[in-house]
Amino acid sequence: MTSLIKNLRDGDEFVGFYLIKEIEAKQTSSSIPKDYLDLVLADSSGAISAKYWDASKTDIETFFPMCLVKVQGVVQVYREKLQAKVIRIRKTVEQDGVSITDFIRSAPVEVEGLLQDIQKAIISIIHDEIRSIVTFCFEKVKDKMYSSPAAKFHHHAYYGGLAYHIVRMLELGEFICHQRPFLNSDLIKAGIIMHDIAKPVEMISEYGMVLDYSNQGKLIGHISMAANWITEAAIKLGIDLESDVIMAIQHLILSHHNLGEWGSPVQPQLPEAVALHYIDAMDAKLQMVEDMLQTTAESEQWTPVIRGLENKAIYRLKI
Amino acid sequence: MTSLIKNLRDGDEFVGFYLIKEIEAKQTSSSIPKDYLDLVLADSSGAISAKYWDASKTDIETFFPMCLVKVQGVVQVYREKLQAKVIRIRKTVEQDGVSITDFIRSAPVEVEGLLQDIQKAIISIIHDEIRSIVTFCFEKVKDKMYSSPAAKFHHHAYYGGLAYHIVRMLELGEFICHQRPFLNSDLIKAGIIMHDIAKPVEMISEYGMVLDYSNQGKLIGHISMAANWITEAAIKLGIDLESDVIMAIQHLILSHHNLGEWGSPVQPQLPEAVALHYIDAMDAKLQMVEDMLQTTAESEQWTPVIRGLENKAIYRLKI
Amino acid sequence: MTSLIKNLRDGDEFVGFYLIKEIEAKQTSSSIPKDYLDLVLADSSGAISAKYWDASKTDIETFFPMCLVKVQGVVQVYREKLQAKVIRIRKTVEQDGVSITDFIRSAPVEVEGLLQDIQKAIISIIHDEIRSIVTFCFEKVKDKMYSSPAAKFHHHAYYGGLAYHIVRMLELGEFICHQRPFLNSDLIKAGIIMHDIAKPVEMISEYGMVLDYSNQGKLIGHISMAANWITEAAIKLGIDLESDVIMAIQHLILSHHNLGEWGSPVQPQLPEAVALHYIDAMDAKLQMVEDMLQTTAESEQWTPVIRGLENKAIYRLKI
Amino acid sequence: MTSLIKNLRDGDEFVGFYLIKEIEAKQTSSSIPKDYLDLVLADSSGAISAKYWDASKTDIETFFPMCLVKVQGVVQVYREKLQAKVIRIRKTVEQDGVSITDFIRSAPVEVEGLLQDIQKAIISIIHDEIRSIVTFCFEKVKDKMYSSPAAKFHHHAYYGGLAYHIVRMLELGEFICHQRPFLNSDLIKAGIIMHDIAKPVEMISEYGMVLDYSNQGKLIGHISMAANWITEAAIKLGIDLESDVIMAIQHLILSHHNLGEWGSPVQPQLPEAVALHYIDAMDAKLQMVEDMLQTTAESEQWTPVIRGLENKAIYRLKI
Amino acid sequence: MTSLIKNLRDGDEFVGFYLIKEIEAKQTSSSIPKDYLDLVLADSSGAISAKYWDASKTDIETFFPMCLVKVQGVVQVYREKLQAKVIRIRKTVEQDGVSITDFIRSAPVEVEGLLQDIQKAIISIIHDEIRSIVTFCFEKVKDKMYSSPAAKFHHHAYYGGLAYHIVRMLELGEFICHQRPFLNSDLIKAGIIMHDIAKPVEMISEYGMVLDYSNQGKLIGHISMAANWITEAAIKLGIDLESDVIMAIQHLILSHHNLGEWGSPVQPQLPEAVALHYIDAMDAKLQMVEDMLQTTAESEQWTPVIRGLENKAIYRLKI
Amino acid sequence: MTSLIKNLRDGDEFVGFYLIKEIEAKQTSSSIPKDYLDLVLADSSGAISAKYWDASKTDIETFFPMCLVKVQGVVQVYREKLQAKVIRIRKTVEQDGVSITDFIRSAPVEVEGLLQDIQKAIISIIHDEIRSIVTFCFEKVKDKMYSSPAAKFHHHAYYGGLAYHIVRMLELGEFICHQRPFLNSDLIKAGIIMHDIAKPVEMISEYGMVLDYSNQGKLIGHISMAANWITEAAIKLGIDLESDVIMAIQHLILSHHNLGEWGSPVQPQLPEAVALHYIDAMDAKLQMVEDMLQTTAESEQWTPVIRGLENKAIYRLKI
Repeated sequence: MTSLIKNLRDGDEFVGFYLIKEIEAKQTSSSIPKDYLDLVLADSSGAISAKYWDASKTDIETFFPMCLVKVQGVVQVYREKLQAKVIRIRKTVEQDGVSITDFIRSAPVEVEGLLQDIQKAIISIIHDEIRSIVTFCFEKVKDKMYSSPAAKFHHHAYYGGLAYHIVRMLELGEFICHQRPFLNSDLIKAGIIMHDIAKPVEMISEYGMVLDYSNQGKLIGHISMAANWITEAAIKLGIDLESDVIMAIQHLILSHHNLGEWGSPVQPQLPEAVALHYIDAMDAKLQMVEDMLQTTAESEQWTPVIRGLENKAIYRLKI
Repeated sequence: MTSLIKNLRDGDEFVGFYLIKEIEAKQTSSSIPKDYLDLVLADSSGAISAKYWDASKTDIETFFPMCLVKVQGVVQVYREKLQAKVIRIRKTVEQDGVSITDFIRSAPVEVEGLLQDIQKAIISIIHDEIRSIVTFCFEKVKDKMYSSPAAKFHHHAYYGGLAYHIVRMLELGEFICHQRPFLNSDLIKAGIIMHDIAKPVEMISEYGMVLDYSNQGKLIGHISMAANWITEAAIKLGIDLESDVIMAIQHLILSHHNLGEWGSPVQPQLPEAVALHYIDAMDAKLQMVEDMLQTTAESEQWTPVIRGLENKAIYRLKI
Repeated sequence: MTSLIKNLRDGDEFVGFYLIKEIEAKQTSSSIPKDYLDLVLADSSGAISAKYWDASKTDIETFFPMCLVKVQGVVQVYREKLQAKVIRIRKTVEQDGVSITDFIRSAPVEVEGLLQDIQKAIISIIHDEIRSIVTFCFEKVKDKMYSSPAAKFHHHAYYGGLAYHIVRMLELGEFICHQRPFLNSDLIKAGIIMHDIAKPVEMISEYGMVLDYSNQGKLIGHISMAANWITEAAIKLGIDLESDVIMAIQHLILSHHNLGEWGSPVQPQLPEAVALHYIDAMDAKLQMVEDMLQTTAESEQWTPVIRGLENKAIYRLKI
Repeated sequence: MTSLIKNLRDGDEFVGFYLIKEIEAKQTSSSIPKDYLDLVLADSSGAISAKYWDASKTDIETFFPMCLVKVQGVVQVYREKLQAKVIRIRKTVEQDGVSITDFIRSAPVEVEGLLQDIQKAIISIIHDEIRSIVTFCFEKVKDKMYSSPAAKFHHHAYYGGLAYHIVRMLELGEFICHQRPFLNSDLIKAGIIMHDIAKPVEMISEYGMVLDYSNQGKLIGHISMAANWITEAAIKLGIDLESDVIMAIQHLILSHHNLGEWGSPVQPQLPEAVALHYIDAMDAKLQMVEDMLQTTAESEQWTPVIRGLENKAIYRLKI
Repeated sequence: MTSLIKNLRDGDEFVGFYLIKEIEAKQTSSSIPKDYLDLVLADSSGAISAKYWDASKTDIETFFPMCLVKVQGVVQVYREKLQAKVIRIRKTVEQDGVSITDFIRSAPVEVEGLLQDIQKAIISIIHDEIRSIVTFCFEKVKDKMYSSPAAKFHHHAYYGGLAYHIVRMLELGEFICHQRPFLNSDLIKAGIIMHDIAKPVEMISEYGMVLDYSNQGKLIGHISMAANWITEAAIKLGIDLESDVIMAIQHLILSHHNLGEWGSPVQPQLPEAVALHYIDAMDAKLQMVEDMLQTTAESEQWTPVIRGLENKAIYRLKI
Repeated sequence: MTSLIKNLRDGDEFVGFYLIKEIEAKQTSSSIPKDYLDLVLADSSGAISAKYWDASKTDIETFFPMCLVKVQGVVQVYREKLQAKVIRIRKTVEQDGVSITDFIRSAPVEVEGLLQDIQKAIISIIHDEIRSIVTFCFEKVKDKMYSSPAAKFHHHAYYGGLAYHIVRMLELGEFICHQRPFLNSDLIKAGIIMHDIAKPVEMISEYGMVLDYSNQGKLIGHISMAANWITEAAIKLGIDLESDVIMAIQHLILSHHNLGEWGSPVQPQLPEAVALHYIDAMDAKLQMVEDMLQTTAESEQWTPVIRGLENKAIYRLKI
């Protein structure tokens, strides 16, 4: 039976299935250098670094990142950290009955349900043109939305992370529209669903991990890409490009980073644009905190520092 | 019958009760200068500038800011703006049956109810020490809380504004705690009620208008004043000054402006501190927008610029 | 015969045709206030403030901004500045044979020729898709391009200013492409012609003077408006929206302000985008200097401060 | 006889007592990895890195940071730096007659005398309430003051550093009060003694080396901690919390970092607060320079860069 | 007998000698405008605005800024401020026995003595080359040093202000060199005397009031001007331009503003350069505070805001 | 025949002449550590890291940075990068007929020609005093100008880089003066030739590679050094130090970095100073792009990030 990585302790011998998250062939610096593999093994509970000494040329060619393996090993403490010494390792085969999705970090609820929630929200938009625009753009990325993270590092950086971010924002948006009826709830819904709609194309991700940014992502950026999609939608749906509706949706997307130095070419000038920025910020920041607390050992009083929170750590208060 | 100021039009003759918001004795620059009064008259619907030509020495001594008056006048357009020419003016007497609170801007709901809501929230705090600390500090300013605005200009700058800000934040805080159960709702409530608790002492206000900052307000600031009150409360209530509870409440108050350049000596490092900052920001920013839209004539597409929103104006969208 | 404003001296009596650039009805502060008109009269050589004492109600209704008038007056020094005292004033009639364009500030060369230069540059673009995109977008604003300034205050703020800016940039762009053959001259031309292509729609201008920004201008901004036009052009011309050509042209426009805080959502990442930013900056800054020196009296050693040059003034060196 | 580390040269064989400042058990990357110890040995004159090859398991368990050892070794040059190869190593025993305080960096004068100087300054405060407040707060940390450094890295980062910083500031403060009699010397003394009074509790230090910040240090910060102590002192001493004296002392502490981004929630608004900030800055900056010059080899023209001086190095001028 | 301006009260009739600090000929806005003079009268104790109604053409030509006058008038309150109504006014004549220096603001000690102190400090410099350089540069501006202020607004903005600033800095410098013997006191003295040595040429001042900056002041700046003078001195005195002495003195001057954005092209990298910056800052800031307190009425708790102190006001504490 | 480094492929055996760009003696971490050499070999086409295992003590003493060697080796892939394993290595001898200049990176045209172009430009300066000043300063560094780079990393960081930068700027300057005749072309030429004239003395470079900054470079900086040279030139040539010509040339040099935080003590206030800054910026930025594209393998779509371009990479567009 596989041991979860977060339960491994110094001296444990273990056998189990893991994902190779990182792999590098290195050589010892002895006078006759020998090959070994420097690995990071992962499962859904965490990750551990590992060494496979005396790797053969065949081994070096066999294993690669995101490859599922069965490993027998022993846990040691090295430089105050746990490290696995690999004794035996092989790639998994069909009969092992394991799937990569069992080993990756993902949103805390089922992605299928998240997508249904988003689609319900789209259907509930009353204004026909707004609903059509949102539908058009959502269809472009629906498939990628299953797995897409919301960001590379900062927040919701896992499988289904973007969908999860949108759904939580929709909940908060609904509350705010109820508390402040002067806000147009169709625009709030549209803004929430569309604000990061081009992220799955801006970023190249696999299993919820961002590998790189696409060329479009670097040269145009997800904010302007989404603005272009709205233009495309309007033309294809026969909506006047100069109408206030198109202007409003574009404004929501363009301004949602709030400041020029954060990537927004214009600043929020609609009530819904002001709301959208703060709904996005609150959900992202609180998720960073929640995720960081969950992935920090219970025994630690302080989390690691969080880049998106002014490089501050979070204290695990017990009162 | 009194005409509401927002309904006055060019050429109108009017009689009514108003509040003198500003008053200055000036002299014409004719070779034999003559005295006149330069006034701003206000009621709960707005304000208008006015001139009282040929004011006597007695007039100059009679009228003062925040004085209620009965005025007969005529409306003119001067430099593209409406202006009242005062024909007759006298101070109100008891028989007129008017009260200053009818003429000032105030929170959109009854302050009495707001204070009850805050007290209910205090009572609902489960943790004894937290509840005692909040009670102690709230008692210090309960009386001033009736009228105190939340700020001089930026947001909730009116009678009962601070209480209104707190109550709306409590609603939002309740939602967030429900959505994210890892947050401690006692701390969220305490943080919301206490975050600006020293503002009524930091600012010298009358009828919801800030006249100045107190010496304490300038030299200590409301954030550190509140921190001192918590220390005082702990000593008087016999709570250990070094306990995590005191540390946590102080941290919430000290960090709620988020950044040093915004006045916080430490940055948020508790989950509830992160939440508190964004709850505060969202409520303040959306209220600025809502207030500005309400005090801008319906006929205007754009509000004036809002200092607290990067000096941007808000567009009154019609879709 | 009309006296040019820049030639008026203290004590001069004059008769001539002028443009009313600003006008305000004011009242003296004598005890029986009297109406007068506070004016700014302009011709193509400059502007002068003027007073028309004892204006009648009819006068106040007759004259308005941008109205052409015949004026008889006398020049006085008031508070160390020249000021005209208006003796007689009337609106011009057809027989006077004067036209508003004689009285406004405009680019130093004929706009007609500038537009021809731009169109020649468009025709010289070799790459078919680039040329088609540029043609499509240019057609949208060709008519407005006659009069459109390049900015409200900073630079080229006059009739035909945008066209003049583009043509000078094309000259500089041609030189740079010749000096550095690794640059793609089609992209340089496209970038130059398109970089401010949406400005005539972003700004509401009359006779080369910007009166305001349009709603689109405020909520979308000329950079994103131009990006949208490129999307529209691609769809209507049947060019692949995902192609490198579309991506490159969009990138040039989006990045030409160089930094987020200057309004660009992405930073230059094509050689031609780097070049475009500096071609734009150099032309704008040097034109500010040249224009300011030309509109500053020869007798002044220092120009007024120039906002676009870190609020520095320019010294008129004589060596 | 022990060789001072700063006198060791390439090829020297040496025997002596040292402090283990850092220690890490590592393994060679040979195919059969072997344990060795990577050390930093220190005495009061400096530090040197050292390797103990072929360390046994017992060795790895025996030695730890801040442990005193007797070492026999030889000095080699490795990658252009001196390094000791350890031949024999053992922990010191009582008979060796060595004490840890002989091996740590400390203030250039006796801490005992520094504390007496501070206490003399306290006694010389004329105003009773000020003197009582300072006495109360000083008593809280008097014991820790013996060893406490003034900062982790920036300045006075050694045994007794804080006391030394205070005493030098008192000298400078006395001069300034003499030069500018409008300053209140009681407040200057109080401000100097109290400005960093909470640092020994903000930081967890051992032998003058800061190991970490305490939870209070991170969540409240030494500035607000000191403000709280003043509140506590006032209550316990029966001094009116609203009095100008309490307000003044709190203001001095709260404002002494001068700017919000440097951690002060209010900016200096008393003459003594302005003076305090500059007295603190001058002493800290000059001490950084003096310390860095003293710990840089005489043969070096330039010191390493100093973080607290805009990352600039200091030139050792010889004129 | 002349009444000091700071002693004038509402209703006072007075006769006395004053300096015309500002004067402007204006016209009333009656339909037949009449001339009057808008004045600011000053003496060494303060200033008061004044009106001279019914001024004749001769009056307008007679009086000018910095002109000494004898005035008979009466004090009135206008817009909550004291204002003098001038009844009779004439220029002073020789027999009046008054001199302009009696009416201007100046350093609190005799300038003559300040210059002697500076010259004593120069003579006390031991290093021959440093002393020669300082002497050479000081001779360039010795005459102007009598009257030159240290800045336009910020600090020491009065007759002899620069000399006073230098002398107080020399006192502080002497203390610091005594406290920290590793500092070279010759360099400290040279740096203090030379740091603003070119200011009398950078600024055009009269009677201690800066009227403008010179062309050199704007285009080169006093820091680089002083650097050039050192080069000139070295050449004329036959000192090696590449020597460490010249490099050190230039470095002190160039770096004394500490940061690039404050005008220093290099940052302090000599111990004496670090000291010089803080000696300069401390003296300038404390003098701002002292001057502002002295020119604010004793009855005021708060001074006006001080630009050089982050726009903060100073509180006049009474304990 | 020597193989160019950029043509080496995995598995290649090669013999050739190379430059040792970096060299470090290391030891393997086997229990009996062995010496080896860690090298970077370079030729004009690029660089490759190399290991020389089993180096003898003699080898370690024989080879040094910038030493030319003949190497026999084999190419391997190590950690995804090419690496050479050295089999035999010896220093070159005279008979090998190789020279260091064949192995270093240099400007793309002959330095000899660049220097002639600069001298032609100097001769073409019409104004006698400007030409003399430029000649004087240029003579100071003419010899160093052969090899001097324009910067340590940012741009033109190679043999002859500074001369190449100047010549390209002169071409651009000539165009700008032709396009905008109000610019004084003598000043433009002088500014271009002199703007970095002190860099060869500010930086210590060898074969176009900057090893360090000189003491003068650190303490005075090239901008102020050049200003001093102009002062020296004026004195030695008998030109009035206070003349507008000297002031103008100094201003051009002092202001060419545009902002204080970029090192300029004054900001551009002459038309030619504004032009000079943008000519410098455009040439530097475009050269960074061009150089980076040329040294990035053709197969790479993106260059590495460029520090001088806001840390952005450049995309190699193919259209």
